[in-house]
Amino acid sequence: MIRGLLSVLLVLVAVAVSSSLAKPEKNIAKRGKRIPQTLSRGWGDQLIWAQTYEEALYWARAQNKPLMVIFHLEDCPHSASMKKVFAEDKDIQKVADEDFIILNLVYETTDKHLSPDGQHVPRIIFVDPSMTVRADITGRYSNRMYAYEPSDIKLLLSNMQKAKKLLKTEL
Amino acid sequence: MIRGLLSVLLVLVAVAVSSSLAKPEKNIAKRGKRIPQTLSRGWGDQLIWAQTYEEALYWARAQNKPLMVIFHLEDCPHSASMKKVFAEDKDIQKVADEDFIILNLVYETTDKHLSPDGQHVPRIIFVDPSMTVRADITGRYSNRMYAYEPSDIKLLLSNMQKAKKLLKTEL
Repeated sequence: MIRGLLSVLLVLVAVAVSSSLAKPEKNIAKRGKRIPQTLSRGWGDQLIWAQTYEEALYWARAQNKPLMVIFHLEDCPHSASMKKVFAEDKDIQKVADEDFIILNLVYETTDKHLSPDGQHVPRIIFVDPSMTVRADITGRYSNRMYAYEPSDIKLLLSNMQKAKKLLKTEL
Repeated sequence: MIRGLLSVLLVLVAVAVSSSLAKPEKNIAKRGKRIPQTLSRGWGDQLIWAQTYEEALYWARAQNKPLMVIFHLEDCPHSASMKKVFAEDKDIQKVADEDFIILNLVYETTDKHLSPDGQHVPRIIFVDPSMTVRADITGRYSNRMYAYEPSDIKLLLSNMQKAKKLLKTEL
């Protein structure tokens, strides 16, 4: 029974992934009205998102706030479930809004520091305003150190509190 | 006289830049409902925009289409007037939609090739899918070679046609 459900799920995922890959060319009704793309991509429509890593770094320095970078994929089920929990958690949304510069990306940057143990998704990386990637702030999984699952939402919040304690820059 | 006008212009630019820089902190009513940010930023809500330069380059190569990068500032009046004309011109929108990978940025990238004669805005730079910045496709103004004004919209369209003729890569 569970196996049967899993098969159905796998088929659904496969369909979702293939339609996602084809998206920019095929999924768009050329005549129909499209929904404008948002920078939040569902991770919190009411938050202020940076568009690019360069912009996010600029704001982190200018406002002396830590940066939180969320790497995800539109049709990855793990990303989707994490996104839902993230967007619905009032504490997370409040802290993200008030104390962080935030950026969510579906394409990797060229900066290797943002993938200390590979480009797995969903992956959440904190960057100190001193421009230091906080590779020390990790999730629960030793093989994907920056991954979080919906059940890890409290850990994520406590990691955000950790990231808020800024590194002291040398004088 | 020209010197006087220049001073006024410089003050205006300074005001525009500072108000634009202050935006994420000040322009937002913390209690009120915010409008979700869009990737189009008003340059064409119905078009499919890349989020970052890396993503745009990826799509340009993958789809063998030229990339058009629009640099602008939210509170620059020249950017605003160009944006209005760009968004309302059906020919421009159609060609941008069908034949280009498009990206609009309010923050500069680290790639110096995208500012061949400085970081003036609004500035439109074409990039061939061979990854070559088309520094040869310019507007009307010798001191800001990649700038366009609303009256230059036909020139922009003809430059888009030029960019569609892809560079031949050497065999």
